Amino acid sequence: MILAKTVKEIAEYLGGVVLGDGDAIITALGTIETAGSDALTFLANPKYASKVADTSAGAVLMSPGAERYGRTVIEVANPYLCFAKLLTLFYAKPPAAFGVLPSAIVSDTATIGEGSTVFPGACIGNNVVVGSRTVIYSGAVFYNDVVIGDDCVIHANAVVRERCRLGNRCVLQPGAIIGSDGFGYAPDGSGYYPIPQIGIVVLEDDVEIGANSCIDRAAIEETRICRGTKLDNLVQIAHNCHVGEDCMIVSQVGISGSTRIGNHVTLAGQVGVAGHLTIGDNVLVGAQSGVPSSLAANAAYSGTPTMPHKEWLKSAMVVPRLPEMKRSVSALEKRVAELEQKLNQITQER
Amino acid sequence: MILAKTVKEIAEYLGGVVLGDGDAIITALGTIETAGSDALTFLANPKYASKVADTSAGAVLMSPGAERYGRTVIEVANPYLCFAKLLTLFYAKPPAAFGVLPSAIVSDTATIGEGSTVFPGACIGNNVVVGSRTVIYSGAVFYNDVVIGDDCVIHANAVVRERCRLGNRCVLQPGAIIGSDGFGYAPDGSGYYPIPQIGIVVLEDDVEIGANSCIDRAAIEETRICRGTKLDNLVQIAHNCHVGEDCMIVSQVGISGSTRIGNHVTLAGQVGVAGHLTIGDNVLVGAQSGVPSSLAANAAYSGTPTMPHKEWLKSAMVVPRLPEMKRSVSALEKRVAELEQKLNQITQER
Amino acid sequence: MILAKTVKEIAEYLGGVVLGDGDAIITALGTIETAGSDALTFLANPKYASKVADTSAGAVLMSPGAERYGRTVIEVANPYLCFAKLLTLFYAKPPAAFGVLPSAIVSDTATIGEGSTVFPGACIGNNVVVGSRTVIYSGAVFYNDVVIGDDCVIHANAVVRERCRLGNRCVLQPGAIIGSDGFGYAPDGSGYYPIPQIGIVVLEDDVEIGANSCIDRAAIEETRICRGTKLDNLVQIAHNCHVGEDCMIVSQVGISGSTRIGNHVTLAGQVGVAGHLTIGDNVLVGAQSGVPSSLAANAAYSGTPTMPHKEWLKSAMVVPRLPEMKRSVSALEKRVAELEQKLNQITQER
Repeated sequence: MILAKTVKEIAEYLGGVVLGDGDAIITALGTIETAGSDALTFLANPKYASKVADTSAGAVLMSPGAERYGRTVIEVANPYLCFAKLLTLFYAKPPAAFGVLPSAIVSDTATIGEGSTVFPGACIGNNVVVGSRTVIYSGAVFYNDVVIGDDCVIHANAVVRERCRLGNRCVLQPGAIIGSDGFGYAPDGSGYYPIPQIGIVVLEDDVEIGANSCIDRAAIEETRICRGTKLDNLVQIAHNCHVGEDCMIVSQVGISGSTRIGNHVTLAGQVGVAGHLTIGDNVLVGAQSGVPSSLAANAAYSGTPTMPHKEWLKSAMVVPRLPEMKRSVSALEKRVAELEQKLNQITQER
Repeated sequence: MILAKTVKEIAEYLGGVVLGDGDAIITALGTIETAGSDALTFLANPKYASKVADTSAGAVLMSPGAERYGRTVIEVANPYLCFAKLLTLFYAKPPAAFGVLPSAIVSDTATIGEGSTVFPGACIGNNVVVGSRTVIYSGAVFYNDVVIGDDCVIHANAVVRERCRLGNRCVLQPGAIIGSDGFGYAPDGSGYYPIPQIGIVVLEDDVEIGANSCIDRAAIEETRICRGTKLDNLVQIAHNCHVGEDCMIVSQVGISGSTRIGNHVTLAGQVGVAGHLTIGDNVLVGAQSGVPSSLAANAAYSGTPTMPHKEWLKSAMVVPRLPEMKRSVSALEKRVAELEQKLNQITQER
Repeated sequence: MILAKTVKEIAEYLGGVVLGDGDAIITALGTIETAGSDALTFLANPKYASKVADTSAGAVLMSPGAERYGRTVIEVANPYLCFAKLLTLFYAKPPAAFGVLPSAIVSDTATIGEGSTVFPGACIGNNVVVGSRTVIYSGAVFYNDVVIGDDCVIHANAVVRERCRLGNRCVLQPGAIIGSDGFGYAPDGSGYYPIPQIGIVVLEDDVEIGANSCIDRAAIEETRICRGTKLDNLVQIAHNCHVGEDCMIVSQVGISGSTRIGNHVTLAGQVGVAGHLTIGDNVLVGAQSGVPSSLAANAAYSGTPTMPHKEWLKSAMVVPRLPEMKRSVSALEKRVAELEQKLNQITQER
């Protein structure tokens, strides 16, 4: 048990309204199927409303007015967000604050902020500046002249190459690579001449990068991921891209060089985006789509090449019926030829 | 030379039947094209049966009854499997058993089993338990409270985050990430609130994970990969997935959160699977397919969105002929309009 | 400031012709939009020719005969390549030459060439041979018996497994994995028996591998990437592949086992290639394509399954119009049925 709180206390913390037993004690959080009588759960999707009847949970977070089947309930406007906040309250530990641990390899010229931790086996290069309360796990490597903000979490074996900069509250999952060389080569008639990639990567505040994702440094100037944007695992961001604020870039997406993504954009899993494009604000691109040209703001797109999402849905429904359609067209051609022949005959006979 | 065995000895080891010179000495294994007279090779695919005539190999593993072109042959029911077993016999070295080597970083509270090796530069956190005869290569990082079984191989720079558990005989290829945070965020009206991912990852016995593949820890409870399942490189498994037994998940596949994959499922390369789905036992999904909804057991599927594989093959054959089909439809429309006009004229004239 | 050169000196270095002020001092390089009066920029794409009028750059590299809008210009045959060479001249630092630094973990039986550097936290196994002027960053791991050439750069947390060999001037970006086990299993009736992967990986001279890309070792013999070929990030090359010279393999491409890629091949982002195929020289495959069968040389292909690129372009244009086409076919069927009925009537009436 990490915490014990009454339903009433939790409701106060969330600004919600208790229906039922406000004195019930909650010591855990769980899913609607598995939560026990000491645990609180939540109902976010009205589709699953009937599960409230069968849950053993001690209390349920739900939207005002939903049927509570006799359960103790805390009504809140956004049950999903409130549940996330309770997860933080109940389970999130304060970050480690051990300083530079033995076997960590930290340059004499690096500066590590107050309350930060560098775990054994992490390597911090020359002139690196790390903010306060930042945790750097084993095997993470910072090249020279890297700057990292406050309250960041750099997981094991993540790499930040020379001169790249991270803001505050950034998270790098294990194996994330920041500042690898952009894929830039000039054909020289026979092979390829590697173009020095002299730019950097900047991650603004509250940016989170998934496991083994890669963000290439700019050829010149910078690749930038703006405030609040989250990248899932195995994402590729090429050199000189600019990704706006509060975007969600789902796993295995690839964005080619110099493309500019607006704010509040969602790219679903395995989407590919060509280079030198502009994707407008609030765009949503469906999974596995291929984006060959710029996309206007405030719309959803799907397909390869992308089209408006609703059109894609309709086209995709036709695809399995193509063989049948092809047969129909062939049959029509035969029937029309027969009609033409008969009609010719009639015309001539007259 | 690692081993020298007669053809007869090898046949006994495999439970096969010798045709030809049972006293021939075999000291190596090779492909049918390159094996020399001291080497044994195999014929698995009847398509290549004629290559037996030309091989220089000292002996050939093949199915009973295949034409042996005068070669020395060992007949076995499954030549491919038997060849794999001989590769193990001839070439697989017993695992290193060096204990904790100098420059390995192992917490005082960790337990390392008998006959295991921790190579220099590996980092083992607090309260970690490692079984017997397990090898942990340089740069691998185990966070606190990790549990690893017997006879595992953890390659360089693999990461296992806090509390995750691996069974016996598991293999992590280099850079594999077990237990990274799931991609879970609650929209809070402006940006995204990170949902603490408090669950774990469980790999059951005989699970193997490819290089730089990522398996996210559950939001709550667990992400589980069941006994005998193999993942290729660069695969993404999202939080709370449950992958059944003896599945083959080929390179660059991505599976979204909370999806349940049955037993003996094969997902070919670059397949994407949406979240909260159920994929039945013995399903086979073709390369690059996109799975938007649950799939019934014991069938093959392809396409984006997926359809039965045979239908997809037929539809895919029509796609290159779409421009021609479109011209046919336009031509038909013109011809039918002409027919209608002529017929009208005839009708009016009468 | 790293260097200061006159326009004339730069023109001599490149073998170009000065138009304008040859005595102007250049101390930096920049983009056409942001370069200041002390900086040189370039015009490679005639599409952007009008930007020369507005640039503040001190000098512009361009092709002979292009309008120079009164700017100081150096005319060269290949402005892009020349700009890349100037980037190297102005910004590329000579490689570090620090020898084996403290906290680097190097086996007593390893040989490190003259002028090479092994950074703290890198791990070099037994009998490894590293050439001259090669830089090995922190967290990189070489297993036993690895051979690395001269003038290589091995970035942080890259891994080279046992017995693999790299030529001269090879670059591994951070997290690249060379020599992971191929994905080879023999079905044994119930589950899968792992086939020992006893081969190696060979990277020839001037091969560059992107961040977190994976190249599997061969089952038997070798996986080979030939001279001058460049791989982007998150690429997967399966066991026993042979990739020719001067290929460009863009991010997130996956190539299945035993496939043979010719010389000067370009595979665009997220392409998937099936196993045991042959891709001819000078082939270009469009982004996200799926290649199920061998491709003839000197041609461009796209689509899943691949077809000639031009045909794919035309087919892709029809896809969004499929619903409309389907309606047209249904309408035609109705109209033709009516025509047939009317014509029957006429025929019978006569």
